[in-house]
Amino acid sequence: MISTGIVVEYNPFHNGHLHHIKEARRKTNADVIIAVMSGNFLQRGEPAIVSKWARAQMALEAGVDLVIELPYTFAVQQAEMFANGAIALLNALGCENFCFGSESGDVQSLVKIANMLQNTTTNQRFQTAIRTHIKQGMSYPSSLSAGFKQLGIIEDDIDLSLPNNILGFHYILAAQHQQTNMRPITISRKAANYHDQTFTSETIASATAIRRAIFSSDNISDIKKVVPATSFQALINYKQTYGSFHHWNHYWPFLQYKLLTTSANDLSELYEVVEGIEYRLKKYALQAQCFSEFMNLVKTKRYTWTRIQRMCVHILTNTKKVEMKEHQKRPEYIRLLAMNEQGKQYLRSIKKQLSIPLISKFSAKFESVMELDSRSTQVFAQILDAKARSLLLHREYSEPPIIQT
Amino acid sequence: MISTGIVVEYNPFHNGHLHHIKEARRKTNADVIIAVMSGNFLQRGEPAIVSKWARAQMALEAGVDLVIELPYTFAVQQAEMFANGAIALLNALGCENFCFGSESGDVQSLVKIANMLQNTTTNQRFQTAIRTHIKQGMSYPSSLSAGFKQLGIIEDDIDLSLPNNILGFHYILAAQHQQTNMRPITISRKAANYHDQTFTSETIASATAIRRAIFSSDNISDIKKVVPATSFQALINYKQTYGSFHHWNHYWPFLQYKLLTTSANDLSELYEVVEGIEYRLKKYALQAQCFSEFMNLVKTKRYTWTRIQRMCVHILTNTKKVEMKEHQKRPEYIRLLAMNEQGKQYLRSIKKQLSIPLISKFSAKFESVMELDSRSTQVFAQILDAKARSLLLHREYSEPPIIQT
Repeated sequence: MISTGIVVEYNPFHNGHLHHIKEARRKTNADVIIAVMSGNFLQRGEPAIVSKWARAQMALEAGVDLVIELPYTFAVQQAEMFANGAIALLNALGCENFCFGSESGDVQSLVKIANMLQNTTTNQRFQTAIRTHIKQGMSYPSSLSAGFKQLGIIEDDIDLSLPNNILGFHYILAAQHQQTNMRPITISRKAANYHDQTFTSETIASATAIRRAIFSSDNISDIKKVVPATSFQALINYKQTYGSFHHWNHYWPFLQYKLLTTSANDLSELYEVVEGIEYRLKKYALQAQCFSEFMNLVKTKRYTWTRIQRMCVHILTNTKKVEMKEHQKRPEYIRLLAMNEQGKQYLRSIKKQLSIPLISKFSAKFESVMELDSRSTQVFAQILDAKARSLLLHREYSEPPIIQT
Repeated sequence: MISTGIVVEYNPFHNGHLHHIKEARRKTNADVIIAVMSGNFLQRGEPAIVSKWARAQMALEAGVDLVIELPYTFAVQQAEMFANGAIALLNALGCENFCFGSESGDVQSLVKIANMLQNTTTNQRFQTAIRTHIKQGMSYPSSLSAGFKQLGIIEDDIDLSLPNNILGFHYILAAQHQQTNMRPITISRKAANYHDQTFTSETIASATAIRRAIFSSDNISDIKKVVPATSFQALINYKQTYGSFHHWNHYWPFLQYKLLTTSANDLSELYEVVEGIEYRLKKYALQAQCFSEFMNLVKTKRYTWTRIQRMCVHILTNTKKVEMKEHQKRPEYIRLLAMNEQGKQYLRSIKKQLSIPLISKFSAKFESVMELDSRSTQVFAQILDAKARSLLLHREYSEPPIIQT
């Protein structure tokens, strides 16, 4: 069976994602599409709009055969670590190909750059350029960009300031470092750009624009034309079952409470809280009236919005530096969220070759290794009313994966 | 000027309190009544129904001349430490008398028992009896009761299982230990008993019954006949200004969040979290759907409701054992909440004899020593909407005491 891996967040699932799945299948002639999907908190440091279970359901209904959770340890991270975790999981699952969307649509340029970095001297020059710029107070993305310039790569070749190009580059780099044999494929993103705030085409819109539409009105029918009918229904169902979508605004009282009750010293033990920013966080937590006001107060040239958001997620989940260090080397398990008959067959065929345990239901045995996923799910559920919260935790701890027959 | 101290919580102020103030003034012929009042969290481990400012206002309107805050370090404590802090403050303020309500109305019996404990051998026997019973798994109040029996004190003499008799006993004991010259006076409590859940007389009801009436209906006019008109209006104003009264139910999501995101090991560093109860707390925090369900699950014969509630307040405010230890020896400041002209004159007359600083406005200078009061106020405000929260914090940090002219 030919298997192709993709790395997704589906926040929420939309027509662009559907296009990507179809193209990934067509281009690689895949029998099985395996999606590694972020859990309840996402790469840009945000809660997902609906739980990982609802998003896995959407994926399944749109043609994905197997949905695996990217653990918190890798999901809420900058591109490099995010890519490392995702590629390791796809490789562990025996994928022949991995396929990602990019602004450039040009996989060869990305491979060429990754190859350049195989050369130790070049790589050192690259890393030094990045470090130097970070020390000068530049943000990570800007420093990365400066690093590429150092290699002689200019925007005319490939624009490595665009988020999907960067991610793609890191997937390829990770696949090389981990010495996998997976073949990289890219698909040019259709119509909408990642950060688009409004709908730009008839049937394709960015997830950002879709979330904005959902949160800006009580009537979500505006998004009907840009998401598959099954996904639309899943969103409706989620709202009905759990009473609310999830937004940073809902978590703000908890973040504020956490920042105000924790000493600067204890905050500095949390992951990504560095360089004395804890004082800044505490100061503005007292003052700010809502999450976006807080973010605008805390943000500086050095700390990008995304970096601070990720930091805030780690504070919210009370994730310590030592905890992260313990788990971030390599994924320690494969958590199965959803599968169809095809996915099931595929799993059966590779089961014996798996080097890490496949977890289809949360069990006490894995409590310690899955602690961060578990805790982040409890935090994710905390904004729901008591009954909905219990329901979501029951889904997490007591039910089997979603199986489509 | 003759000054008489009282120790109060006013949660909320009612006709029984009014009677107590009048009697205290009459019996001691006082020119000044000084109330040492718990801040936003109370002795029984509960948030006050309204802020300390609103309660200080009620006190002033009912005839108290000076309202001083009992710091968090002493307020959210069992009787012994609570009494130590309150008596130390009244003594520091130069009170000649202190006057407390009791079920017995008999100050001589209480003084007699306190005197017995001046004898080292008797005191050791008493302490040993208490410790032995605690070790056997009995609660503190039951052990204390057993200690009294050991001294030959039986219920026919004075019932030392009644909460106000116990508190009174501890005030007298503290006054002796601190070698003050203050004269103890007691006033028999009228009509309502401390724990009464319903109204038992026409104009006197317990604060418990009053809070129950307030929280069980949207219309608080039921309590009109049992509280002074000024207090009734103050309650109405509070609700209008801040949008909500304060109840443990409102703080439950934060307590639950704190328990779920904090490791058992870190919880055990918090004040009053001992003997491995942290595991029990974490287990039931995951399971419980509301505060009272949680409390009923956690409660055992050994851990009384009140003890667990106090523990929960310390968890909510993230108060560490080391922090408490640092501040609990003796009050380090006198925080003035409210005064009238009489109180102002009295303060002027004793100002030079004060052994600890009088703080009339929060200032950076006292930030460190007032850290626990400050933090507990921030937690207290956390359940309000953003605007009301800012208002309450402004009252705390930026405004002068309440002055009645």
